[in-house]
Amino acid sequence: KAKELLKGLHPADIAELYQALDLDEAEFIYMLLDSEKAADVLIELDEDDRKKLLKHLPNEVIAKQFIDHLDTDDAVDLIREMDEEAQEEILSHIDDVEQAGDIVDLLKYDEDTAGGLMGTEMVVVNENWSMPECLKEMRIQAEEMDEIYYVYVVDDDERLKGVFPLKKMITNPSVSKIKHVMKKDPVSVKTDTPIEEVAQVFEKYDLVAVPVIDSIGRLVGRITVDDVMDEVREQAEREYQLASGISQDVETTDTIYTQTSARLPWLLIGMFGGLTNSIILGNFETGFITNPAMALFIPLIGGTGGNVGIQSSAIVVQGLANGSLALHNAGKQILKELAVALINASMISLLVFGYNWFRMGIDAVTIAVSLSLFSVVIFASIFGTIVPITLEKFKIDPAIATGPFITITNDIIGMLIYMSICATLAA
Amino acid sequence: KAKELLKGLHPADIAELYQALDLDEAEFIYMLLDSEKAADVLIELDEDDRKKLLKHLPNEVIAKQFIDHLDTDDAVDLIREMDEEAQEEILSHIDDVEQAGDIVDLLKYDEDTAGGLMGTEMVVVNENWSMPECLKEMRIQAEEMDEIYYVYVVDDDERLKGVFPLKKMITNPSVSKIKHVMKKDPVSVKTDTPIEEVAQVFEKYDLVAVPVIDSIGRLVGRITVDDVMDEVREQAEREYQLASGISQDVETTDTIYTQTSARLPWLLIGMFGGLTNSIILGNFETGFITNPAMALFIPLIGGTGGNVGIQSSAIVVQGLANGSLALHNAGKQILKELAVALINASMISLLVFGYNWFRMGIDAVTIAVSLSLFSVVIFASIFGTIVPITLEKFKIDPAIATGPFITITNDIIGMLIYMSICATLAA
Ligand SMILES: [Mg+2]
Ligand SMILES: [Mg+2]
Ligand SMILES: [Mg+2]
Ligand SMILES: [Mg+2]
Ligand SMILES: [Mg+2]
Ligand SMILES: [Mg+2]
Ligand SMILES: [Mg+2]
Ligand SMILES: [Mg+2]
Ligand SMILES: [Mg+2]
Ligand SMILES: [Mg+2]
Ligand SMILES: [Mg+2]
Ligand SMILES: [Mg+2]
Ligand SMILES: [Mg+2]
Repeated sequence: KAKELLKGLHPADIAELYQALDLDEAEFIYMLLDSEKAADVLIELDEDDRKKLLKHLPNEVIAKQFIDHLDTDDAVDLIREMDEEAQEEILSHIDDVEQAGDIVDLLKYDEDTAGGLMGTEMVVVNENWSMPECLKEMRIQAEEMDEIYYVYVVDDDERLKGVFPLKKMITNPSVSKIKHVMKKDPVSVKTDTPIEEVAQVFEKYDLVAVPVIDSIGRLVGRITVDDVMDEVREQAEREYQLASGISQDVETTDTIYTQTSARLPWLLIGMFGGLTNSIILGNFETGFITNPAMALFIPLIGGTGGNVGIQSSAIVVQGLANGSLALHNAGKQILKELAVALINASMISLLVFGYNWFRMGIDAVTIAVSLSLFSVVIFASIFGTIVPITLEKFKIDPAIATGPFITITNDIIGMLIYMSICATLAA
Repeated sequence: KAKELLKGLHPADIAELYQALDLDEAEFIYMLLDSEKAADVLIELDEDDRKKLLKHLPNEVIAKQFIDHLDTDDAVDLIREMDEEAQEEILSHIDDVEQAGDIVDLLKYDEDTAGGLMGTEMVVVNENWSMPECLKEMRIQAEEMDEIYYVYVVDDDERLKGVFPLKKMITNPSVSKIKHVMKKDPVSVKTDTPIEEVAQVFEKYDLVAVPVIDSIGRLVGRITVDDVMDEVREQAEREYQLASGISQDVETTDTIYTQTSARLPWLLIGMFGGLTNSIILGNFETGFITNPAMALFIPLIGGTGGNVGIQSSAIVVQGLANGSLALHNAGKQILKELAVALINASMISLLVFGYNWFRMGIDAVTIAVSLSLFSVVIFASIFGTIVPITLEKFKIDPAIATGPFITITNDIIGMLIYMSICATLAA
């Protein structure tokens, strides 16, 4: 009866059920599934749960029960999670030679490129075939596939020549040669196109799948939108997490240990930043005795620098990620940021000057605070803009530059500026 | 010749070209397009450019040249950008009565729900039809549509009964009744399902389109994955921007004025926070004279509170957004956060205690700093967790709670704790 019930459920729902149950119950349920479904559920599980489940299983079973039944892109993801020894053993146990060959080929590509994201399940027809020939071929090829949205057309050398939506098969059933109805020069990506660019292509052209070609234009795979959507979500979450000082992908469901180890490193870096500040301020300790009002504005200056820097870097990081900011426009962006910074700096330093004038009159602290605020806002804006652009130039992920790193640097520079101005005015 | 060239280009590429050219050239190019393509390009433009372009055009032209040729979901988006008067005039000028009726119906739905995202372009067949009947109907319906991925099956009362991928039309060409091959109980969403949930459904079930039903199960529209992907990107960018203290969607391409007005509000709130801190610290001004070392640790305590609070709130905001954290698990999440906080707080306060012991020996400041750090980390963790959960409970977007607001509150509470402990130890 449980078996009947499971048959009607989507693999994603079974995975959810699996994760809600105790390990014993979950594994009992899992044993009731047929190989095809068990493989699909496995892919939907969290990496932790998947690892726990696979740990008990011999590599031969993993190969025959799971890898053989998975789409090649998912099979590659699964194999990448294993150590090298297990990888080789599993590959040697795959019964379907074509599947094994495809997987070996796919494993060669970098994970962050189109090649690393693609699978080989697709319907491919020759440009010289007629529609009835294509339909016949499609019925054969389609059996292995869950869903099909496009048919790809190649020439005799397997070079991608065109694409046509399935709809055309139904609306133009009796064409003599496919090349007369296909859409020529279809949108495609190369095996070494970075994933971020692949996502931009999907978003720009509203695609459901994209063909992947090699360096001489041969069709080698396809990427589907569901996998791209996962990448977009993950990339966005990663940017946000890095900006929030979380060094690895954590979820509310992760263990306390995982959460702590993702968070403590940044907190410790922040701690060193704070202690550095205490040393800087220590050099001016006598200043606080003669002029204790100096101390009152430390949080204002540090906080403002941090806030400004995070804003600037967030705008640049997002612009680089979604493609609206290109490196050759960096100069323009810095100038624009400078303009924004001048407005923000003037507003804030004038407002605070007015407030302090009213509160304490015009003394050294009033002047030092506003001068420092002005300098800090300008510095933090430009610094927050230049750091991610520079990292992108050196092909380092700019997202790591945001958040705590920029906040802490701005905090320290802010204190240096404030204390130097205070000391100069006092002298 | 330019006209020929434009014919071969995708609307998204023409839009890119349009935005790269001067206004005069751009409008010249635009005039060369036929209505269908002009409408598609219009939708791809930035909102600003679109507004500039439409400003010169009478509402009748907008209705006949654009709205009539657009998919209903895009048409509704375009109309929503107009003021009420223009909306009514445009609706009255649409030639296609069915299109006008669909648009009026769609305008009723809330923008942030499935109803606000859906369009009415889809292929619908009756469950009692045969495959050849369906094929015939599909050829008629399909003419108005760019692409089709699923065929939706309804009963005589228009209630959604099933779905089948186009593939089935090709692999099962001679079925007597559609209901025998369709997938029953298809995944669907309701018109009032929030967009975030719609996105979660797409991601969970790897969909390319989803049917939308009304409260009694009748099929009223469909949502396609390209629009969902735009929403996911936008939602993620918005969360990140809000967390970075940017109050409206800004891009590097926006004007200096737009950027400043999105950023200055938060900076001013931060400024008030900083000034509040200066008042709090002002109450202990004499303390800085007798014990100037107190001032040195202000950035450390303020910064640590801010860093911890942002981490906690980012994890909760993301968990609520991607569905991995449910409100009924809030209690568990708070307890888990407390455990993480205790570890982080102990580590940081002990390390700083060791450092200060070595630097200054064990005096009032050494004790006050570590006690404050401990309390601030615990407070900031719990505060950063509870605030977004509470907002979600009251159906307010939790993303607005992150970033500057939590940083500033933690900063102020941090100073209050530090100064209170300093004062207590001094007394
Ligand atoms: Mg499968
Ligand atoms: Mg994959
Ligand atoms: Mg798009
Ligand atoms: Mg679009
Ligand atoms: Mg896949
Ligand atoms: Mg994640
Ligand atoms: Mg159209
Ligand atoms: Mg829309
Ligand atoms: Mg209609
Ligand atoms: Mg998915
Ligand atoms: Mg999937
Ligand atoms: Mg659409
Ligand atoms: Mg945006």
